[in-house]
Amino acid sequence: MSINAPRGTQDLLPGVSEKWQYVEKVLADLCRRYHYKEIRTPIFEHTELFQRGVGDSTDIVQKEMYTFEDRGGRSITLRPEGTASVVRSYVQHKGYGLPNQPVKYFYVGPMFRYERPQQGRLRQFVQFGIEALGSDDPAIDAEVLALAMSAYEELGLKSLKLVLNSLGDKESREAHREALVAHFQPHKEELCADCQVRLDQNPLRILDCKKDRDHPAMETAPSILDYLNEYSQKYFNQVKNYLDSMGIDYVIDPNLVRGLDYYNHTAFEIMSEAEGFGAITTLSGGGRYTGLVEEIGGPETSGIGFAFSIERLLMALEAEEIELPVNEGLDCYVVSFGDEAAQEAVKLTYQLRNAGVQVDKDYQNRKMKAQFKSADRLQAKYVVVLGDREVENQVVNVKNMQSGEQQEVPIAEVVQHLQQQLPGGE
Amino acid sequence: MSINAPRGTQDLLPGVSEKWQYVEKVLADLCRRYHYKEIRTPIFEHTELFQRGVGDSTDIVQKEMYTFEDRGGRSITLRPEGTASVVRSYVQHKGYGLPNQPVKYFYVGPMFRYERPQQGRLRQFVQFGIEALGSDDPAIDAEVLALAMSAYEELGLKSLKLVLNSLGDKESREAHREALVAHFQPHKEELCADCQVRLDQNPLRILDCKKDRDHPAMETAPSILDYLNEYSQKYFNQVKNYLDSMGIDYVIDPNLVRGLDYYNHTAFEIMSEAEGFGAITTLSGGGRYTGLVEEIGGPETSGIGFAFSIERLLMALEAEEIELPVNEGLDCYVVSFGDEAAQEAVKLTYQLRNAGVQVDKDYQNRKMKAQFKSADRLQAKYVVVLGDREVENQVVNVKNMQSGEQQEVPIAEVVQHLQQQLPGGE
Repeated sequence: MSINAPRGTQDLLPGVSEKWQYVEKVLADLCRRYHYKEIRTPIFEHTELFQRGVGDSTDIVQKEMYTFEDRGGRSITLRPEGTASVVRSYVQHKGYGLPNQPVKYFYVGPMFRYERPQQGRLRQFVQFGIEALGSDDPAIDAEVLALAMSAYEELGLKSLKLVLNSLGDKESREAHREALVAHFQPHKEELCADCQVRLDQNPLRILDCKKDRDHPAMETAPSILDYLNEYSQKYFNQVKNYLDSMGIDYVIDPNLVRGLDYYNHTAFEIMSEAEGFGAITTLSGGGRYTGLVEEIGGPETSGIGFAFSIERLLMALEAEEIELPVNEGLDCYVVSFGDEAAQEAVKLTYQLRNAGVQVDKDYQNRKMKAQFKSADRLQAKYVVVLGDREVENQVVNVKNMQSGEQQEVPIAEVVQHLQQQLPGGE
Repeated sequence: MSINAPRGTQDLLPGVSEKWQYVEKVLADLCRRYHYKEIRTPIFEHTELFQRGVGDSTDIVQKEMYTFEDRGGRSITLRPEGTASVVRSYVQHKGYGLPNQPVKYFYVGPMFRYERPQQGRLRQFVQFGIEALGSDDPAIDAEVLALAMSAYEELGLKSLKLVLNSLGDKESREAHREALVAHFQPHKEELCADCQVRLDQNPLRILDCKKDRDHPAMETAPSILDYLNEYSQKYFNQVKNYLDSMGIDYVIDPNLVRGLDYYNHTAFEIMSEAEGFGAITTLSGGGRYTGLVEEIGGPETSGIGFAFSIERLLMALEAEEIELPVNEGLDCYVVSFGDEAAQEAVKLTYQLRNAGVQVDKDYQNRKMKAQFKSADRLQAKYVVVLGDREVENQVVNVKNMQSGEQQEVPIAEVVQHLQQQLPGGE
């Protein structure tokens, strides 16, 4: 009886894994240029971290976490997202005391949520994200937005929409909250059960309720942008000015909200506008937060970050029919026949690989014709042929598979010969 | 109250994560040249996979697995090693039916074992490994050995020892097993409790018992090498001949055994001989196996592979005092003063990054002197200075931080100017 991968997980096999390597290389290089450095946190954390850092009241913590007891009886949880872990690490290793501030991290790795698997939503998925901790400068909000957009653009995506909002500071949010309660209170009985609870606990979330979105009171609901105090207004304007000067387009959506109290000022989402991308068009989300570092045990620190799933990014690339430049052709295939030649082929293969050339050969004792067939199937650029006669004469036959041209080359010179033929082979 | 990472796990922070990136890049490039392609399997699997693939009787399965029930009541386990998952994936996706055989995979990723944490042994650790499935050619054993040794050598390790053995085929192993039982039976009462059980169940394992290793019967125990039948002898000789022709040194150790019935023919370990590396000198282990693919539900297939932990590799590099070529200096730091210059600095930083240059700037509203101090601390190669006067004149001041040389450059030409100065900046 065979065993399959657990539901909601997937294997990335050769042919697909190269795309992931390429995407990760582009993202890592982008982060290098923006001077964000990689942090790797453990796959699991103490459960309490996510209860505190993601929020006890969220769907993630209440319904979707992989939580279990380890053999020592401690409750641990497979990380459902990246920010809480990064902040935990920042506090544990006292990142706030480093000489270079803000501290700018990026991460990429698997996250886990027990949800109903569907297209583009897996139980194990890979998130890329960044966090900048320790700056209140609108310029870093603009930097984070620029990096997020560049990530998609450098991979070739064109149909993108950056949606921006400001949640203001605490004072602004409280004024807005009061206005929201006053506005929706008369309609309380008409709202869905969830929104009736939200009205008391977190009225902001009413604005992104999917059930009540057609209620007439939604259209006339007070906008956060009308309640921003002077500081928050100025902050938001600066962010927009920086985006303008970089030439990054955006649209403002005052209904773009965030569920948790941590969030303040800049909030954003990036959507795909590609046709046929599907119902959920959000690729990425992020924003500015405060209070999270304190909740995890550190000093008051503000942060900003965003994250996206690589799976959804690859879906967007597919929707725009973008082929990543993933080269699958082999540099060189070594064909040999006869016992002495087999011995020499192993040696030559080893030498070529040591010299930077990508080489494969037969490992199934096949006839020469079948070996050439393998070379074809692997799209080998060069085939090196040697039989016992060639070994005796210390030569090989090098065939350029594109031109069909053949050349006899002394064995001692094959490595150098191929290095010269192949771009970047040295 | 603060929360720490779970016991036996670690954060890889900037300054260290670059070493991991470098090691992984070297390993990925090595695999590219050897034509092993990356496979990524899920972090957790159905528990049954490891019970069957690693073996119910092993310490790993009995004592060390992170096993738990998911919200659907299924028993899942964080993978304790890589081979079982790779073989599961190979069977699930019918790798045995692919046109190019053998199928050659590499993997790198976190593994989990609940052990007592100690130096170089964590509960979450990262393993790199390869598996070649579908070939019985001694040349591929030699290829795997060459790749394993090259992995260490290309990172600069010198004090290495490759220890080799053959476990022979089934017939050879059975003959040896009988000889072992006959040899140890008279001494049964003198052996440790574990070995008394092993004598019935798996007498081969007596040979690597740490308690009984000084028992006089150990020295005279029958060697597997004296029980290899003709086929196994020839197989082993061919592996050794190939190693010789590649110039790879090795020593034979007939006591190098493997616990599970799957293993046959080639078995090996690579040890560090660096002084001060510690008591456990094994860096890597691997070998040939058969029967595993069938156990997981596929057709009879032989495989060979090896794995090592990156943590132990980094320990070995440290023991040999090898510094990895990890560059930490920044390409460029943008210093600005004045409101208009701040706006221009954001734009210029963005343009430089788009052009491939690594840039950072101030995000804490600091004075010029403090900004220069940051540039120094980040070992910036170039500093671009602009104040409101420069913005008015549409120029910037570019300072080469090594030579101290300064140059006024039109803003429109800075990107091109720096691209030319920096190696690989374009």
